[in-house]
Amino acid sequence: MSSTAGKVIRCRAAVAWEAGKPLVIEEVEVAPPHKVEVRLKILFTSLCQTEVIFWEARVGTNTIVSSHFLAMKLQESIGEGVTDLQPGDHVLPVFTGECKECRHCKSEESNMCELLRINTDRGVMLSDGKTRFYKNGQPIYHFLGTSNFSQYTVVHVGCVSKINPAAPLDKVCVLRCRVSTGLGATLNAAKPKKNSILLFLGFGLLALLLLKGLEFLGLQGSLFFDHDQSACLSAKKFGVNEFMNPKDYDKPVQEVIAEMTDGGADRSLESTGNIDARISAFECVHDGWGVAVLVGVARSKDDAFKTHPMDFLNERTLKGTFFGNYKTRTDLPSVVEKYMNKELELEKFITHHVSLPEINKAFEYMLRREGLRCIIHMEKLENF
Amino acid sequence: MSSTAGKVIRCRAAVAWEAGKPLVIEEVEVAPPHKVEVRLKILFTSLCQTEVIFWEARVGTNTIVSSHFLAMKLQESIGEGVTDLQPGDHVLPVFTGECKECRHCKSEESNMCELLRINTDRGVMLSDGKTRFYKNGQPIYHFLGTSNFSQYTVVHVGCVSKINPAAPLDKVCVLRCRVSTGLGATLNAAKPKKNSILLFLGFGLLALLLLKGLEFLGLQGSLFFDHDQSACLSAKKFGVNEFMNPKDYDKPVQEVIAEMTDGGADRSLESTGNIDARISAFECVHDGWGVAVLVGVARSKDDAFKTHPMDFLNERTLKGTFFGNYKTRTDLPSVVEKYMNKELELEKFITHHVSLPEINKAFEYMLRREGLRCIIHMEKLENF
Ligand SMILES: [Zn+2]
Ligand SMILES: [Zn+2]
Ligand SMILES: [Zn+2]
Ligand SMILES: [Zn+2]
Repeated sequence: MSSTAGKVIRCRAAVAWEAGKPLVIEEVEVAPPHKVEVRLKILFTSLCQTEVIFWEARVGTNTIVSSHFLAMKLQESIGEGVTDLQPGDHVLPVFTGECKECRHCKSEESNMCELLRINTDRGVMLSDGKTRFYKNGQPIYHFLGTSNFSQYTVVHVGCVSKINPAAPLDKVCVLRCRVSTGLGATLNAAKPKKNSILLFLGFGLLALLLLKGLEFLGLQGSLFFDHDQSACLSAKKFGVNEFMNPKDYDKPVQEVIAEMTDGGADRSLESTGNIDARISAFECVHDGWGVAVLVGVARSKDDAFKTHPMDFLNERTLKGTFFGNYKTRTDLPSVVEKYMNKELELEKFITHHVSLPEINKAFEYMLRREGLRCIIHMEKLENF
Repeated sequence: MSSTAGKVIRCRAAVAWEAGKPLVIEEVEVAPPHKVEVRLKILFTSLCQTEVIFWEARVGTNTIVSSHFLAMKLQESIGEGVTDLQPGDHVLPVFTGECKECRHCKSEESNMCELLRINTDRGVMLSDGKTRFYKNGQPIYHFLGTSNFSQYTVVHVGCVSKINPAAPLDKVCVLRCRVSTGLGATLNAAKPKKNSILLFLGFGLLALLLLKGLEFLGLQGSLFFDHDQSACLSAKKFGVNEFMNPKDYDKPVQEVIAEMTDGGADRSLESTGNIDARISAFECVHDGWGVAVLVGVARSKDDAFKTHPMDFLNERTLKGTFFGNYKTRTDLPSVVEKYMNKELELEKFITHHVSLPEINKAFEYMLRREGLRCIIHMEKLENF
């Protein structure tokens, strides 16, 4: 056990006192973990577009420790009942968990744990309905199960994935969220065959990672469509020629694809959550065997997925996926191994670095769509 | 070679001179098969609801030899280039074929042969664009590739499935169409796991066959919903208690199912083609792993499949299937073997018999929804 085990830890955290306003670095108290919880030391974290959306849209007067999907931590101390983790383990905390006991966890087809699935409303721990963060006795709430913009955080053990201790923490911290989602959606949901043509709609520069990470599949080709002109241009700089902007064509995407691929893509994946892009993704796949996988979060609760039912008769499949169908504890370590085996060039993806006090810069990069991923160094207090 | 090989055969056929009018028994001439065609002697055939729909709706002034999905024939003679069939073989002719050369036939995921997939408009043979049926020199057209309401017919070799010669032809003639479709949709598209709960929407009394045929899967349960009260009542006579009528509930089917199954069925199959039933089928499956399979033919070209996209995020899958994903030549013989292994109680399904001159009675039984399947004895000319 570390010398801090069982004691309150005082550390720095980036607190969102108000939705959409810059985060403020505060000194906070982090309580010890309760039963089936662990307290983690966070070394590196990052953020993505979804994080920015949550930060902008988050309503209510509650103050929260803003957390994010991308993070990288070291175990500090464990609570009662934690048997598969030890202080010192290298872990990834995840916004969605795996309790290993519910019907979803017991099913080999689902990763949507009944107990620990993503919950954007719960700001407290499950065991006692309370937070572990305080500032001068005033509670500061958790967010998305991990609350990782703090140098220390408390997480349910089911939201923690134990990884290879040889993995460099400042690299594999970007493996979560869309990287795992894109990779898992392709491997676990789309399941392309050898010589398949894959179509990616709205994956931005994640494409760069996926291209290399999927090479072992022996695909015939990957086509990337994105409305973001800067993503298209950057991709070309990286030597990716299959990067196209739907705006450059005067026909609907599905017609462009049908012509390019002799009838349709074998598999398609849609990442934006835009309803029209989703319908396109479905209508872009070949009859007989085409599979369309919807990856993104739905933009509007009022959107309706609408298509002509004749399409369904032609042996097309439409699938929803969540976090790439990866189970947090069981499957995520294998994604880290893909990096260790040089199948994922994470370095290409990391374009910026900031220290904890500079965390608001990381938001600005995302808002300006500048670069790819920015690593937040949680222990560093001086500027980069 | 039989003594009739290479010669025109004169025989009896039931001809539809006009859509929706009773068929007329005529003496017709059947030309010898051309290249990659075979001429078959038909012993037993049958019909189903879809046949009645086609017969009622078929427009145009062309007269056709009405064919059907359910048929049973013996090979008579073969054309040039036919290598895998010999006169005397026992075969099932199918409304959809397998050329073994196109991309669909070469894909292990599709049975929608580019050359021979179902075509309700083509009344002629592919090789020369002509018919093989004549009456006093006047052409009579083919229908759905098999034209099996004739004592002899000519079919593309790709639409012929060679089966176990020990199989009783007057029984396995009902194995095609919805029986194969329902079975294949379950086994090849829905792919339930052990202990799954299956939901069947609008399968009528086909349920009786499926229950037994799917026993080997070790399901937890099968639920059958059907608007047809007589089907529900008959099922109860057969001892099937899981047969329910949605009209007996004052809640939407998806709510009834969610309560009965603790959140949703593991797999659902929809057979009517009704758009609301299809949407129900999708909304009835459990998040995390549920798969909904749409089996029926779309009723209206204007129908739109419409659902809230949030559902897709929850790892549900929606699939279209066609003829149970069975390839005509490669897979269909295995369905006959299921009957031979007593996994399919076809006898239960056969409730009526008529001779060829009584063929219009078979249509009346279907229209009145009387009984299950009626066997048409093609060689028998006196009344039953
Ligand atoms: Zn993210
Ligand atoms: Zn669970
Ligand atoms: Zn039929
Ligand atoms: Zn083919």
